[in-house]
Amino acid sequence: MSGGADPEVRRARAWLSRALEPGSSAAWRFVEQSGPVVAAAALRAGTAPAEVQAVAGARAGEDASVEDLRRVARCGGRLVVPEDPEWPALPLHSLTLATEDGRGLVDGRQPNRTLTLVPPLALWVRGAASLTGLVDRSVALVGSRASTAYGEHVAGELAHGLGERGWTTVSGGAFGIDAAAHRGALAAGGPTVAVLACGVDRVYPGAHSALFARILDEGLLVSEWPPGCAPLRHRFLVRNRLIAALTRGTVVVEAAARSGAQATANRARELGKAVMAVPGPVTSAMSVGCHQLLREVERPVALVTSAAEVLEVVGRVGEDLAPPVERETAPGDSLSDVARRVLDACPVRVGVPPERLAAVAGCSVVDVLRVLPALELADLVEWTGTGWRVRRQSPRR
Amino acid sequence: MSGGADPEVRRARAWLSRALEPGSSAAWRFVEQSGPVVAAAALRAGTAPAEVQAVAGARAGEDASVEDLRRVARCGGRLVVPEDPEWPALPLHSLTLATEDGRGLVDGRQPNRTLTLVPPLALWVRGAASLTGLVDRSVALVGSRASTAYGEHVAGELAHGLGERGWTTVSGGAFGIDAAAHRGALAAGGPTVAVLACGVDRVYPGAHSALFARILDEGLLVSEWPPGCAPLRHRFLVRNRLIAALTRGTVVVEAAARSGAQATANRARELGKAVMAVPGPVTSAMSVGCHQLLREVERPVALVTSAAEVLEVVGRVGEDLAPPVERETAPGDSLSDVARRVLDACPVRVGVPPERLAAVAGCSVVDVLRVLPALELADLVEWTGTGWRVRRQSPRR
Repeated sequence: MSGGADPEVRRARAWLSRALEPGSSAAWRFVEQSGPVVAAAALRAGTAPAEVQAVAGARAGEDASVEDLRRVARCGGRLVVPEDPEWPALPLHSLTLATEDGRGLVDGRQPNRTLTLVPPLALWVRGAASLTGLVDRSVALVGSRASTAYGEHVAGELAHGLGERGWTTVSGGAFGIDAAAHRGALAAGGPTVAVLACGVDRVYPGAHSALFARILDEGLLVSEWPPGCAPLRHRFLVRNRLIAALTRGTVVVEAAARSGAQATANRARELGKAVMAVPGPVTSAMSVGCHQLLREVERPVALVTSAAEVLEVVGRVGEDLAPPVERETAPGDSLSDVARRVLDACPVRVGVPPERLAAVAGCSVVDVLRVLPALELADLVEWTGTGWRVRRQSPRR
Repeated sequence: MSGGADPEVRRARAWLSRALEPGSSAAWRFVEQSGPVVAAAALRAGTAPAEVQAVAGARAGEDASVEDLRRVARCGGRLVVPEDPEWPALPLHSLTLATEDGRGLVDGRQPNRTLTLVPPLALWVRGAASLTGLVDRSVALVGSRASTAYGEHVAGELAHGLGERGWTTVSGGAFGIDAAAHRGALAAGGPTVAVLACGVDRVYPGAHSALFARILDEGLLVSEWPPGCAPLRHRFLVRNRLIAALTRGTVVVEAAARSGAQATANRARELGKAVMAVPGPVTSAMSVGCHQLLREVERPVALVTSAAEVLEVVGRVGEDLAPPVERETAPGDSLSDVARRVLDACPVRVGVPPERLAAVAGCSVVDVLRVLPALELADLVEWTGTGWRVRRQSPRR
């Protein structure tokens, strides 16, 4: 495994992951303050604060942690914990800030329940790629399950364009827009992440077993719930905040009025992430939710029609590559227009030849060859032996 | 005729209308300062300022004014001049302000030519309705001639919805979006105005003779050019500013990139009018221009999907009915929500029964009957003998 966390910590997190249903800020705060090993022991002993003990309930008396870790390993997965270098600490920091601010919201459909923007305690992950490496430059494409051919086409095109530019498409693995987005990313040879509301060993919906198998080749299945957990209705709402948090921004491709995709967009906005929407025919019920978002005057949502426009919103060269805190000026700040476009055209994983970069960047191969040395000297790109890719700034497995 | 202007003034304006090709701010300023009779005499004597004399050129030596007035009368029309009560002074004031500010713009296609936002010298009008009465509550629907079935459907629906609410649809009488807009208004029994780039006695395009005949029943044909004038290419650009100026706001329904409809939208914006655009499939070339407008960050354009949303942008009860200068508080300011909706539902021309008002306003007939007495007492609506309509505040023929 990633070798970061102590096995005892990992096992404690595995236990907490099953004992504490995700989404409780009290539980997250308790684990954060006590540490996972002490927190798990307290819950098992029944000495945790009442509020947290109540979240665990009868589950505090059970221990499936060893079996859960074995089950995820059997299907080629692992448990990623905050103590691992693979943990996507930067994207998830938005949830930490939201929880510390006490931000939360009353969900319209469950007015008595405050849905808190709380970080996950651990993430169950299947697939060979690094979670933090994949979500570092990622965009969420979300939308209706009852999508139209138009919406699926656009979701596929956007994901394909993002994949071509080395960006990861994150979605929920569901029918409709989600599936079209994952497929579009895969068609471009780009990575894609499905964030599930059930165990990563389960295939839900069942018809997506072939799709999930393909996602595992290029990307990841991710879940807050341990192996075997069922996709219960309320888990989708909790899951949606994670899709918003992991990514740079959320694009609503097609959504009916008052839909789950709009809810994900609202979570993204509450987390300070970019929110975008794709317009569609005003005669289509599946675009009403998008148009509602685009008509909001006080909380502007960007209208996007292509992957390039999505990246205009979420990706500036400097911000993409530089850690946001350490440097005052980002390494790409002084790049020429052509250099910027070539850099944006570089994939993050598999190196590609200059001809491909020229095609994606919309310039000549001569231009590409002219700017590559400067990009390499600036540590922005690297030669893999078979092609050029973005030089990785964050730790990868 | 409207009986406002002196016959000598009308004849001078008719002469100026042919002698001075519309769109010259120098010419307009000269006429404004000298008065039409003196200005016409000076031009005929060759003593006008060189800049203005140059606009007239050889036309200063000709006089077709009597014949032009006869020709327009023969086809049931008239010349409306600023000295007439029928002159739409309030909407056109936006052009006066723009000219006085020296606002103008270089047209992208003719970079050497400054296209000035100058008021018209006179308007040739065909149709029974009052020009100022019709454009007082009007919206421009503009778009591509090479429209799609989707765009035509939406243009028709928007115009129909505007017509049902007593608003006038203004467009350019062309193929495509223009024709669909006029037809939608007519289908609702609502008034519609076609602003032409040729004489009002001409039918251009020729295939629109039946459409123009129907427009004349319910609305108006309007042109700055005297009878017989041809629809020359550059006249469309000049005409577009008039469409923008006459209306409360301009809706771009479908437009290709860098299209004439976008130009009209820009004119509307420069005149301080509302600019709206209808979204469409991102896969449609005919919606690219709309999406470009909607993606402008610095100069926001409202996304609209229905007539109700258009009226949200252009029509507030107080503003609709009250002259903007004379009163501090508009008569509709203190209306209840239901009363506002009923008032908005009232047509301006033909009275309708309470059942119809209830259907349009989206409330019960009981509600309508409850609020109508208050609206009548406030001089906002009137009973025509067969139904209720908005009480007219501006002079009509």
